[in-house]
Amino acid sequence: MRTIRLLLQYDGTEFVGWQRQDSGVSVQGVIEDALSKIEGGAVTLHGAGRTDAGVHAEGQVASARLNSPLDDDTLARALNANLPPAVRVVAVATVADDFHARFSARAKTYEYRLWNGAAIPPFIRHYAWHVPQPLAVEVMQRAADALVGAHDFAAFQGTGSTVHTTVRTVTSARWIDARPAPGGRLLSFEMSGDGFLRHMVRAVTGTLVEIGLGRRPADDIPRLLAARERSEAGRTAPACGLFLVRVEY
Amino acid sequence: MRTIRLLLQYDGTEFVGWQRQDSGVSVQGVIEDALSKIEGGAVTLHGAGRTDAGVHAEGQVASARLNSPLDDDTLARALNANLPPAVRVVAVATVADDFHARFSARAKTYEYRLWNGAAIPPFIRHYAWHVPQPLAVEVMQRAADALVGAHDFAAFQGTGSTVHTTVRTVTSARWIDARPAPGGRLLSFEMSGDGFLRHMVRAVTGTLVEIGLGRRPADDIPRLLAARERSEAGRTAPACGLFLVRVEY
Repeated sequence: MRTIRLLLQYDGTEFVGWQRQDSGVSVQGVIEDALSKIEGGAVTLHGAGRTDAGVHAEGQVASARLNSPLDDDTLARALNANLPPAVRVVAVATVADDFHARFSARAKTYEYRLWNGAAIPPFIRHYAWHVPQPLAVEVMQRAADALVGAHDFAAFQGTGSTVHTTVRTVTSARWIDARPAPGGRLLSFEMSGDGFLRHMVRAVTGTLVEIGLGRRPADDIPRLLAARERSEAGRTAPACGLFLVRVEY
Repeated sequence: MRTIRLLLQYDGTEFVGWQRQDSGVSVQGVIEDALSKIEGGAVTLHGAGRTDAGVHAEGQVASARLNSPLDDDTLARALNANLPPAVRVVAVATVADDFHARFSARAKTYEYRLWNGAAIPPFIRHYAWHVPQPLAVEVMQRAADALVGAHDFAAFQGTGSTVHTTVRTVTSARWIDARPAPGGRLLSFEMSGDGFLRHMVRAVTGTLVEIGLGRRPADDIPRLLAARERSEAGRTAPACGLFLVRVEY
């Protein structure tokens, strides 16, 4: 028996999220089914991040233990042949037996993408939030600077979560003018840290956009971090704009 | 009554093509329906290029004549409110009455995109052709150079076409390494000219890819142009990789 690490990409549009559940088709579910078919027995997959329904991944990492004699590259090809085109295995690697995609992760990076312009290009309609009004990106960047460091992010946690601490360390939070385009621009908000609370990136993005629209004071982030009240912060940005882009070990 | 020019983007995946037809939903059809609703009477739309089923547009241009008193920007917003998200009006402009999107066009640019790598990223699966084998891009570029100029492109014309001449002038034909990415690269083939035959860009791309794979001589293009035989040239590349990107007047 060996332990494998999988590098994954997926379009989350049609899935109920990463985690296997009764309500519909999950990313974990389709990959576990493909692995189990190749293995000829049940295989359990552990993902680094449990992305929500509609959230995408450019660099999700998962781990599993299996007996299959297939070498890593052949396994990757066999998996892709058994997966829907919305889920791709970019690479498979055999790793140390104590590797666990979730518990071994040291840092993660998420990217939130939004289209700032009158009409959103059809090609990114499932991959970006459409914000037509003008946004003050420099103001949003100054506000985002206050997120960097170890803070209690309770104000940015989705309701119904049960975690033992809401303190997380954010190592970088930056807005990137990703692509000038006719009729608008694609903006990305990239956030790296040692861990993220449920809906944290989307709640932070929703709040920063309210600041960028002038609907909330530019210096509101320190107040929200101190208040620790979800109802004080901004709306949760839609799932379709969020990508898990990188996991570090 | 005034004449308007529309700048359009669309995701062609779910359409039977630009042209209205009985077999399914067309891009022309949904825009004519939205225009007619706003006008309160039938409006006919003329497109610069009649893209095939599954072909996309980043910069299609169309023209129409109508009586609606709405100003250009309001008309663009009203159209977008009545169109599916797969079709967007980027801009509307009132133009001279003798403007006709098709007959006034001086030049068009198409771009054909392909993913060259083991697994195609899920986000571009409807917007690029997947070619997993190694491609010699420099060889494909040298072959493409032979396309530039006024030539008889009969060898690259889809069967069943009836045009009075198959001579077209290509002003540029270049391969662009658009984006380095993990596990592969996105390659684009951009072709500009005064006009294009049916399936021409896709037949040219399919032929150049066969050259890049080493399955066809590097200097085959001049021979094919002289032969004027569709059966001598390469396969027609799939529709999903093709974009009409620009029309010049």
